[in-house]
Amino acid sequence: MKSHSLSTLSRRTKEPPISWLMATALANPNLISLAAGFTDQASLPVKETTDLVHELLCSPKTGPAALQYGTTIGDPVLRELTASRLKHLDEVPAASPAVWSAERMIITNGSQQMLYMVTEALCDPGDVVLVEDPSYFVYLGILQSHGVHARGVRMEQDGLDLAHLEQVLEGLRRKGRLARLKLLYLVSYYQNPTGITTSFEKKQGALKLLRQFERLAGHPLYLLEDAAYRELRFRGEHVKSALAADPSDERVIYTGTYSKPFATGARVGFGLLPKAVYTPVVRIKGNHDFGSSNLLQQLLTRALACGIYESHLAVLRNRYAQKAKIMRKHLHQQFPPAVEWREPQGGLYFWPRLPHRLKSGPHSRLFQEALKKNVLYVPGQLCYAEDPSRPKPNNEMRLSFGAASERNICTGIERLGKALHQLL
Amino acid sequence: MKSHSLSTLSRRTKEPPISWLMATALANPNLISLAAGFTDQASLPVKETTDLVHELLCSPKTGPAALQYGTTIGDPVLRELTASRLKHLDEVPAASPAVWSAERMIITNGSQQMLYMVTEALCDPGDVVLVEDPSYFVYLGILQSHGVHARGVRMEQDGLDLAHLEQVLEGLRRKGRLARLKLLYLVSYYQNPTGITTSFEKKQGALKLLRQFERLAGHPLYLLEDAAYRELRFRGEHVKSALAADPSDERVIYTGTYSKPFATGARVGFGLLPKAVYTPVVRIKGNHDFGSSNLLQQLLTRALACGIYESHLAVLRNRYAQKAKIMRKHLHQQFPPAVEWREPQGGLYFWPRLPHRLKSGPHSRLFQEALKKNVLYVPGQLCYAEDPSRPKPNNEMRLSFGAASERNICTGIERLGKALHQLL
Repeated sequence: MKSHSLSTLSRRTKEPPISWLMATALANPNLISLAAGFTDQASLPVKETTDLVHELLCSPKTGPAALQYGTTIGDPVLRELTASRLKHLDEVPAASPAVWSAERMIITNGSQQMLYMVTEALCDPGDVVLVEDPSYFVYLGILQSHGVHARGVRMEQDGLDLAHLEQVLEGLRRKGRLARLKLLYLVSYYQNPTGITTSFEKKQGALKLLRQFERLAGHPLYLLEDAAYRELRFRGEHVKSALAADPSDERVIYTGTYSKPFATGARVGFGLLPKAVYTPVVRIKGNHDFGSSNLLQQLLTRALACGIYESHLAVLRNRYAQKAKIMRKHLHQQFPPAVEWREPQGGLYFWPRLPHRLKSGPHSRLFQEALKKNVLYVPGQLCYAEDPSRPKPNNEMRLSFGAASERNICTGIERLGKALHQLL
Repeated sequence: MKSHSLSTLSRRTKEPPISWLMATALANPNLISLAAGFTDQASLPVKETTDLVHELLCSPKTGPAALQYGTTIGDPVLRELTASRLKHLDEVPAASPAVWSAERMIITNGSQQMLYMVTEALCDPGDVVLVEDPSYFVYLGILQSHGVHARGVRMEQDGLDLAHLEQVLEGLRRKGRLARLKLLYLVSYYQNPTGITTSFEKKQGALKLLRQFERLAGHPLYLLEDAAYRELRFRGEHVKSALAADPSDERVIYTGTYSKPFATGARVGFGLLPKAVYTPVVRIKGNHDFGSSNLLQQLLTRALACGIYESHLAVLRNRYAQKAKIMRKHLHQQFPPAVEWREPQGGLYFWPRLPHRLKSGPHSRLFQEALKKNVLYVPGQLCYAEDPSRPKPNNEMRLSFGAASERNICTGIERLGKALHQLL
């Protein structure tokens, strides 16, 4: 055996697929990036944060506390306010089940940290996690790093294809692999990358199927609901979370964030966890950092308590609605009719699908032509897990209206449209 | 095989030894805690932070950027300023070797996150890490969580007992375990828990021994220098870091923090890593959170750039010098002469050693008597690794002058002194 100084985890952990995209964008300042998942720069709550931090630090009651260590699970008031907010979003009464309580909540460094810790807490190398096909590529990276096999479940316009989910579960059963299955990961609102929202019925259906197969698995099968974009709704009905679809109160792990709906520079996220997962994750968090920055937590606490969070969110939703509308209009005008796309009801992304003969991958003529025209998109291919049961689709693109200015959205789509017309 | 929903890591991860101490303190508000590792409340830079955040956010150049995502490795200016600061501390010229450069630096959520990621990057279950005996208990928890065996190396008044280090290395060689050894972990300045500072000569000596044995190990053996308390020096000469003792530029992993010397509520730490470890750790950081809060990073950048960091640090050092002096005076007056202790030159801790017949552990009569008298300390036992080669010493206590007020330091030591006199 060769002796190694790097761990097995290190040797498995790949360069994130997006980093060369970021490097490309940085190297060329004239490039219009519709690739970045950054949020809108113009609507960042600069004035609001200035005032909040001022009030926070000038109060003798909160000032020193905000600059001192807190606890591993996070500020009790922030957990309470977040639990109340989730109850409100899920339309459950204030005196509702324990599942929406502050006692099940942990505050994290963005919801990303919670995704990482949940994976650490549940998954061993060789385990299996089901993901939407396509899914959030950073989560796919976490799975790969931990030696966990991702299996893709096809999507429909209202979320998971439940028939395919059953088929995949059945396939795992047949191969004797169910005992290695740990969870199903869903980005349930305005999904990254497709913009698709999972209907409440599909959440119920998925939980029912998981429950059905967990008897054969011999242990709980969790639904990990990543609700990172939930608050960024600008059209359509609000859909309740999977928490409201879990009659057991014990199978849904819910992660959310204040980064995207307030300020990505503040990075405060949270998770609501079933009891059996809560304790291990708190211990892991104790080892990661024994608690997130109190200053940032207090900032969010105050923003929530005084209504600034809510009023800023209203501004943000209008802003994204406007930017999505511009992108839609230009896609309509500039993209060939053979390219299919749907308008999302929230979030940051469009997900155009090209005719099959036209590839969109990093080595495709389209991608190179787009680069030549100074516009960048995320090749859809990067959002698919390494799943031997199907080839990775290679004819989609993720387009973000989050960070680009309105003007750049117009110009970027125009340039991409030209490239598409050239090649079709 | 029993099927598990929790990972092996979860099942290994224990309740932190200190959490019941914290729970005890919380449950009894009259308790004087000399146990907490919190920092001094009265000297937190409340006014400074208020002004810095105001300036930061009111400038159109920095305001929106501070509230937007940054990069995984962290803000370039903060990395540059931190590298310069380390060069200054290590008394190396500005045009010094690449090892002190911003290109080798990663900004983290406190230095704790860096300790975690370095362990993830280097260690597999079954590997061995050498630690000071005693050591920082949260790091011991990280090792345990990852299934890594901690082996203790005895300490002298100026750091590691190098003869014992050689003996431990030789023992690993004899047992064919050297290939599993990954690193030596040192809390090199005003150590948590003993207050001991490792001399520069001992750092050189340790590196030389590691280098000598790495030929037999078959891979690099790293020195992980945790310099969390470095800036909190209030007496004695400054000691250079292990970076200055590493002729290869490739074997020292250095972690530092702005949490303790500026504000623990801000949680900005950093690491300087050899090239071979840098890339894996950046990738892991990408999966953890793809970058620490930009707002906190910008706050520290501004504090460093405008001199507020330095001037606040001077205040803080005086403050801790004063509190250490008070603790020393009362230890001198109140503790029986049979109890040995030394005055630290910085940091937050005293480490009294009791006569062997008197135990200090959580179940000891002393600990119970102290609780009855409403004073809490950290039993020394909790700071020792599970190392089968020696029983855990059970006659020491960690006393912190960090968080307690001057008055509480006096009263706390008086009460502890009474308990000691009663039992001796």
